[in-house]
Amino acid sequence: MAENLLDIIIVGGASAGLTSALYAARQNLKTLVVTKDIGGQALLTDHIENFPGYEPIGGFELMSKFEEQAKSFGAQFVYDEVISITEKKERCFTVRTPNAEYETCALVLAFGKTPRDLGVPGEEKLKGKGVSYCAICDGPLFRKRVVAVSGSGDPAIDAATLLSGLTEKVHLVHSGEKLFGDDRTLVDLKKKPNVEFVPSSRIVEIFGERNVTAVLVENTGNKERKEIRVDGLFVEMGYVAKTEFVSDLVRLNSRNEIEVDANCATSHPGIFAAGDVTNVPFKQAVVSAGQGAIAALSAYNYIQRLRGGSLVRADWKVKR
Amino acid sequence: MAENLLDIIIVGGASAGLTSALYAARQNLKTLVVTKDIGGQALLTDHIENFPGYEPIGGFELMSKFEEQAKSFGAQFVYDEVISITEKKERCFTVRTPNAEYETCALVLAFGKTPRDLGVPGEEKLKGKGVSYCAICDGPLFRKRVVAVSGSGDPAIDAATLLSGLTEKVHLVHSGEKLFGDDRTLVDLKKKPNVEFVPSSRIVEIFGERNVTAVLVENTGNKERKEIRVDGLFVEMGYVAKTEFVSDLVRLNSRNEIEVDANCATSHPGIFAAGDVTNVPFKQAVVSAGQGAIAALSAYNYIQRLRGGSLVRADWKVKR
Repeated sequence: MAENLLDIIIVGGASAGLTSALYAARQNLKTLVVTKDIGGQALLTDHIENFPGYEPIGGFELMSKFEEQAKSFGAQFVYDEVISITEKKERCFTVRTPNAEYETCALVLAFGKTPRDLGVPGEEKLKGKGVSYCAICDGPLFRKRVVAVSGSGDPAIDAATLLSGLTEKVHLVHSGEKLFGDDRTLVDLKKKPNVEFVPSSRIVEIFGERNVTAVLVENTGNKERKEIRVDGLFVEMGYVAKTEFVSDLVRLNSRNEIEVDANCATSHPGIFAAGDVTNVPFKQAVVSAGQGAIAALSAYNYIQRLRGGSLVRADWKVKR
Repeated sequence: MAENLLDIIIVGGASAGLTSALYAARQNLKTLVVTKDIGGQALLTDHIENFPGYEPIGGFELMSKFEEQAKSFGAQFVYDEVISITEKKERCFTVRTPNAEYETCALVLAFGKTPRDLGVPGEEKLKGKGVSYCAICDGPLFRKRVVAVSGSGDPAIDAATLLSGLTEKVHLVHSGEKLFGDDRTLVDLKKKPNVEFVPSSRIVEIFGERNVTAVLVENTGNKERKEIRVDGLFVEMGYVAKTEFVSDLVRLNSRNEIEVDANCATSHPGIFAAGDVTNVPFKQAVVSAGQGAIAALSAYNYIQRLRGGSLVRADWKVKR
């Protein structure tokens, strides 16, 4: 059990969580990162221009550097999903994954946002079996095949643009009569011979047993339905904060984001949060990284107060 | 005059200011950075381990990368000191340096903190002529010469440690009977044959015409004074926010730091602030960078509201 008793557990492995891990581990805290994957939304782009100090860099490459750096200072990683966090006596917490339980008195919640589900029959069963939420990640799996994109705005336009260069055909299903987004990209997209726009429509069911075989599309006006044969479906419906599992512990705002103060403290002592999952006004990798550092140092000070140790001061600059 | 009319002026050229410049320029704002120098406190170390995504890197090297990146997106730079900021009619501002005047309706204040002066006769005259506030920057200028360090805590210990390896002799003048700081560094420092501790003492005057020649040291107990012949004096008295010149415009806290909200907005419309000069709880390069991004995007939205343009949303992620 001792190896499951941590000084700090960080839930999430992207810009905020990995920077938290780096800062916590450098403070000699026994640090565990629990995350389904590394990189989060940074993986959605292969061309980040606005992380300071970097030439354009791929999201995967940047996040891998963060991970290596956190590990080099001793942070441990478990690649698993947190399914519950419960409070124990004496203000400490039990963090559960499907495979293990961990104990800690300080937490940083930094698990970002999650693609919004379409919410139709077949979706849950066929996730990862043709239903994808990341064109840049999974697009290459559909070379020379037929796909649908369901969504609106720039995310749908960008996904369709990318997929039109990879796949045989793209059905772009969008609810409005017209699609709105970046003008220039949209004009270019309309010229692609292998993109078929399916306006005023929504997907109401996804068919397939072991893999996606077709989607059922309903016209939002006359309610007519038709089946379109596809090998894959890309859902581009935006992102949501999936914070239900901590909603009894920390205060959320109306968008289900975790409310934090300037110290990245939540409404619950010992629980800190950072990055896209919080009410931070802009969701940017460098903003998340800055918040990750603040959350880790605030958590360190919280732990030190519990232990009667000395605190990190605001003007703390020194390397250790 | 047209080239002196900017969309946004950023005062300061370190982690916060340069990240602001990068973000503002990428939004196609006509962006000017006015700063005395590049790098700020990051220059005080040649070994930054905790900027995410980087192997240990020198402060100068990291800040140079930030600067190049901001310039690559079109940010302009003027290497000068801002001596005043005044409000014009219609909520815009005039920013003055000793050599020029600039006009803007949006400002980011990101000029960090400034070393605290010793506040004794001779200091002002001999700044840069033997009186230094940065051992790592100026230490090499004093090879094989005799220097004094005035200060307390880790900054003074670190400066004396560094200088003991470069200079012939270091007089370490500290006000208390004992010096407090990192134990291990202090034990090592006490073994250095060329370091002389001058306890319970303070420097009351600095002598020299064209260069420092000596310091006058007073014992804080018996008030006895003695002159120590030195070629240089390193002042390690901590850092202060030199915000007097904007104190009529923006609200300051009790440490003279500029108060900002979660959007990095100050109490004054159109004026944003980021980094060590603000009330941000931890002064760290990556925290300043995150704030710099927030300040620039908030300023962009402020300008767009003035112009009736569209805003950057919280979930804005796209590259331009």
